[in-house]
Amino acid sequence: MPLAFKRLLIGTPLATAQAKHERLAKIPALAIFCSDAISSVAYGPEEVRIFLALAGTAALSLSVPVAVAITLLIGVVSTSYWQTIHAYPSGGGAYTVARENLGTLPGLMAGASLLVGYVVTVAVSVAAGVAALTSAFPVLYPARVWIGISCVAFLAVVNLRGLRETARIFAVPTYWFITGIFLVMAAGAAHLWRGEPVPDFPPMDPSGLAPLTTLLVLRAFSSGCTAMTGIEAVANCVQAFKPPEAKNAGITLVWMASILGIMVMGLTYLSDAFHLVPRVGETLVSQLAGQTLGRGWLYLGVQASTMVILLLGANTCYGGFPMLSSLLAKDGYLPRQFASLGDRLVYSNGILILSGVSMMLLVAFQGDTHSLIPLYALGVFISFTLSQFGMVVRWTRLRQRHWRHHAAVNLIGALVTATVVAVVGFTRFAEGGWMVIVVIPVLVLMFYTIRRHYVAMTRQIDVYGYRPPKLGRHPVVVLVGGMNRGVIAALTYARAISPNVTALTVDLDSTSTARLQMRWDEWAPDVPLVVLDSPYRSVIQPILQYIDQMEKQRDGDYMTIILPEFVPARWWQHLLHNQTALLIKAALLFRRGKVAISIPYHLGS
Amino acid sequence: MPLAFKRLLIGTPLATAQAKHERLAKIPALAIFCSDAISSVAYGPEEVRIFLALAGTAALSLSVPVAVAITLLIGVVSTSYWQTIHAYPSGGGAYTVARENLGTLPGLMAGASLLVGYVVTVAVSVAAGVAALTSAFPVLYPARVWIGISCVAFLAVVNLRGLRETARIFAVPTYWFITGIFLVMAAGAAHLWRGEPVPDFPPMDPSGLAPLTTLLVLRAFSSGCTAMTGIEAVANCVQAFKPPEAKNAGITLVWMASILGIMVMGLTYLSDAFHLVPRVGETLVSQLAGQTLGRGWLYLGVQASTMVILLLGANTCYGGFPMLSSLLAKDGYLPRQFASLGDRLVYSNGILILSGVSMMLLVAFQGDTHSLIPLYALGVFISFTLSQFGMVVRWTRLRQRHWRHHAAVNLIGALVTATVVAVVGFTRFAEGGWMVIVVIPVLVLMFYTIRRHYVAMTRQIDVYGYRPPKLGRHPVVVLVGGMNRGVIAALTYARAISPNVTALTVDLDSTSTARLQMRWDEWAPDVPLVVLDSPYRSVIQPILQYIDQMEKQRDGDYMTIILPEFVPARWWQHLLHNQTALLIKAALLFRRGKVAISIPYHLGS
Repeated sequence: MPLAFKRLLIGTPLATAQAKHERLAKIPALAIFCSDAISSVAYGPEEVRIFLALAGTAALSLSVPVAVAITLLIGVVSTSYWQTIHAYPSGGGAYTVARENLGTLPGLMAGASLLVGYVVTVAVSVAAGVAALTSAFPVLYPARVWIGISCVAFLAVVNLRGLRETARIFAVPTYWFITGIFLVMAAGAAHLWRGEPVPDFPPMDPSGLAPLTTLLVLRAFSSGCTAMTGIEAVANCVQAFKPPEAKNAGITLVWMASILGIMVMGLTYLSDAFHLVPRVGETLVSQLAGQTLGRGWLYLGVQASTMVILLLGANTCYGGFPMLSSLLAKDGYLPRQFASLGDRLVYSNGILILSGVSMMLLVAFQGDTHSLIPLYALGVFISFTLSQFGMVVRWTRLRQRHWRHHAAVNLIGALVTATVVAVVGFTRFAEGGWMVIVVIPVLVLMFYTIRRHYVAMTRQIDVYGYRPPKLGRHPVVVLVGGMNRGVIAALTYARAISPNVTALTVDLDSTSTARLQMRWDEWAPDVPLVVLDSPYRSVIQPILQYIDQMEKQRDGDYMTIILPEFVPARWWQHLLHNQTALLIKAALLFRRGKVAISIPYHLGS
Repeated sequence: MPLAFKRLLIGTPLATAQAKHERLAKIPALAIFCSDAISSVAYGPEEVRIFLALAGTAALSLSVPVAVAITLLIGVVSTSYWQTIHAYPSGGGAYTVARENLGTLPGLMAGASLLVGYVVTVAVSVAAGVAALTSAFPVLYPARVWIGISCVAFLAVVNLRGLRETARIFAVPTYWFITGIFLVMAAGAAHLWRGEPVPDFPPMDPSGLAPLTTLLVLRAFSSGCTAMTGIEAVANCVQAFKPPEAKNAGITLVWMASILGIMVMGLTYLSDAFHLVPRVGETLVSQLAGQTLGRGWLYLGVQASTMVILLLGANTCYGGFPMLSSLLAKDGYLPRQFASLGDRLVYSNGILILSGVSMMLLVAFQGDTHSLIPLYALGVFISFTLSQFGMVVRWTRLRQRHWRHHAAVNLIGALVTATVVAVVGFTRFAEGGWMVIVVIPVLVLMFYTIRRHYVAMTRQIDVYGYRPPKLGRHPVVVLVGGMNRGVIAALTYARAISPNVTALTVDLDSTSTARLQMRWDEWAPDVPLVVLDSPYRSVIQPILQYIDQMEKQRDGDYMTIILPEFVPARWWQHLLHNQTALLIKAALLFRRGKVAISIPYHLGS
């Protein structure tokens, strides 16, 4: 990317010294780290009703007790994370907690499931955000995948620009969404309070109904639990808060959990009171806002803020994913490139991978929130479970004050989230759940393999005990295709670096070869020209054979092969030159003690 | 591709000396060069009936006079090409004939339209071949695009193996197809001769019928002319015949034209007599074979041979396309890579491009022969027209014996083929015809641009008047990230090639930098280590700035930058190392007088 364009898109670079100033106060932090959790109310309660509706409209009244259970779980899990924040003020993501308390393998499993979770969160949130838009403007429904992809691309650009600016851009809409949902709830409550009529349930075909089993209720509960996804974001990013980091993060977490619980309860109760049934093409929040606020500007405001906060929710992952992958990279489990800060104090490589994979998910699942939920719940809840079991182990190990009480809280959280994993894993295995089940072990294996390579390498490159190579009168071979300025330049360079220069050409056409030999005596009589036969018209094979032969008789540990290279003025002109030089260099790379040098000759336009 | 796998797939290399032995006798030459034309009877007559049927069953009887016109045109065009073969015994493709007689621009237009024609021929022939298969086994119809793509892939592999073997593989089925079609015609004639009953026309909805206008008949004729596509193949490849090349090629052409004419007439007459109407899902040849031979083994034999000869027809282009692109490349209008023979005496790059683009066409047009016809007729008939006008000019210029007579034959051919181009171009512009109209000028522009680059380059690299660069005590800079064996090896190499060595490191982390400086004094006290600041954490920018600064004070025309590089044992491990070296090299490539050298340090597993 040309530098000017990059600067325009992602801003001027920030100096390392500016890093401290990038820390966030609680109000913008709530906007940036809690938007994932808070935005989850846009699809969590709807998921509950989608499953209960399978058993008919009567079963829908169960949504209120299910919502109570989910709200209780929000309380348990956020208490658990509050404990984590204070135990790990330097940032206690599931990876750190599980690795420290349960061991490397569970830690890596947590890391893998978090990475998966982040990717799916982006896809789910963007899909749900686009659904908020297409609920208001059904004409856009067929374009939902493209709109989703554009949103992810937008998030990638915003995040490559850096953290604080992101928070500043997005602080307003978060509070706007919270206001909007409370407005919907207030209008709905007033409607009911005044005893105004509500519409009847739409008629349903009783023959298509499933029986109301415990499993169905469990599935509704498990899918509804996605309303609390994102709750862990604060714990992962404690260091992004202004000091005192742990205290500020903890307070932000409590705010978030309260807002979340009230919204889940309120939206569920009102959906039930207004006899709303989930349907394709319009979200539950859109239906409810339409019923309570009418289809005017207020309604459009709620839909717009829903879309924006869901994009903010997706944006949370742009904080978490690169930070986690840099943590993994620093521990040697991911390629080193992920460990380095890009030039806007963010982890650019992580941002690009996150965006790419979630775009693929949007395409594969045709931008449908409901189909993405199994992947989502598995990715997120596996890491919840591991993190909370890790905390249980920690309490029982350290035995600090009130440790039994703390351990009990984490244990309850762990058991309930494990239940969610089991139910979703079993009942929705075929609907995409298997992907997560397959991807997590594959990622863990990859982590181990990468680390093994780095460990082996560190050992191999240690300077102690190394006998430096000897060069002596090391042989230099110049590859020649014809007599031109590029060759003259290459020969000049070769003579300067070694007294032992040979030129090499392959005879593909006897006329050209004879012509070359004639001109050679005129222009480079001091360098011997070796002509190689090539009965099979291959240029590369004879050269490699000759080099391998010289290997046996060379003086010193290195041998240099010089390739004259024309550098055209325009990029497309590179396509017009034989790629032979590239192939020769690639072949030489895998032969020890060979140094390949291109001597550039720059062409005009 | 690993070499062993490549050898298994495309065979061992052939020596240049074997080239003469690859020449073809008339019988295998008919199989390989005429299969395109002969196989065209599988769709040409059907195209006529598709258009006439638009005006109802009564209009279908016009197919016989239209077929007579097409057969006459086959006579004219093949006479024209017979003249071309004798005028250009070294191979007279439309490109050569048009370029020599009409000028460069018409020549390049002919070349471009031929390239397009080859690509579309592969797509059309494969689509029609797959249609022969799915006519017999309708269950395969939904998989037709994939079957088509597999067929193209198969052809690519066969052709990468080389020419003569291709002829040997395919000689039998061509004669089998000819036999099969003659069998169908004989059985049909016998059926009619014995006065046995034929089925009635299927009923047609008269409200959907188009009026029978002259334009409709012209469209039927134009599309039916695709029955003669491929007739030029012999003229393009005269040099592939055994000596006397022109005579053998001419005789082969006459055979081909006769077989073609008989088949077009016979199939059209019988389709009419048997009241056949074209329909989606079953080809006309399949219907006719079913009616005359019954749906037994004979029928399947005809279908199989139809499919195989159509693949052979596509295969013709694998002779023509690479040969034409190598001709264009030798004249400097295409990248040089196209000019070189692969290691099986074939032009590998051309084969790969041809296959790729025709696969894309198959996907884009969903493997439907009829939709591809406009592209096809335009690509092929533009080159026919240019080639024949070229011959007219040639006769009037040379004024050899009977030149008026010869010129008249070519002129008639040129006018009729120009009519086909005009009718197809106007009436089917929207149905894909525009692609050809757009692509041909784009290709011609590309040809000119490429040649301009090569001409400019040849001038620029000429050795006369060149002042060779001076190196003197040229500066060598070793880029250092830490102290390890790779760096020691790089320093050793640097010391060997110049007395003027500096080491350069970028300070990203003060602890590591301090550690490096400490170890530096122990391991390389003779080389000065320059530490660059990087307030924006970029590694590349400070290095480039330093190098640009040194530029001003350097001694000699070159400056060498050495990058220590770890070469991992496995390919995937390359992904685990910072790609910084690659980025630095890319940046240096565009700076004059900079030589970048990677000194490899090979890692174990």
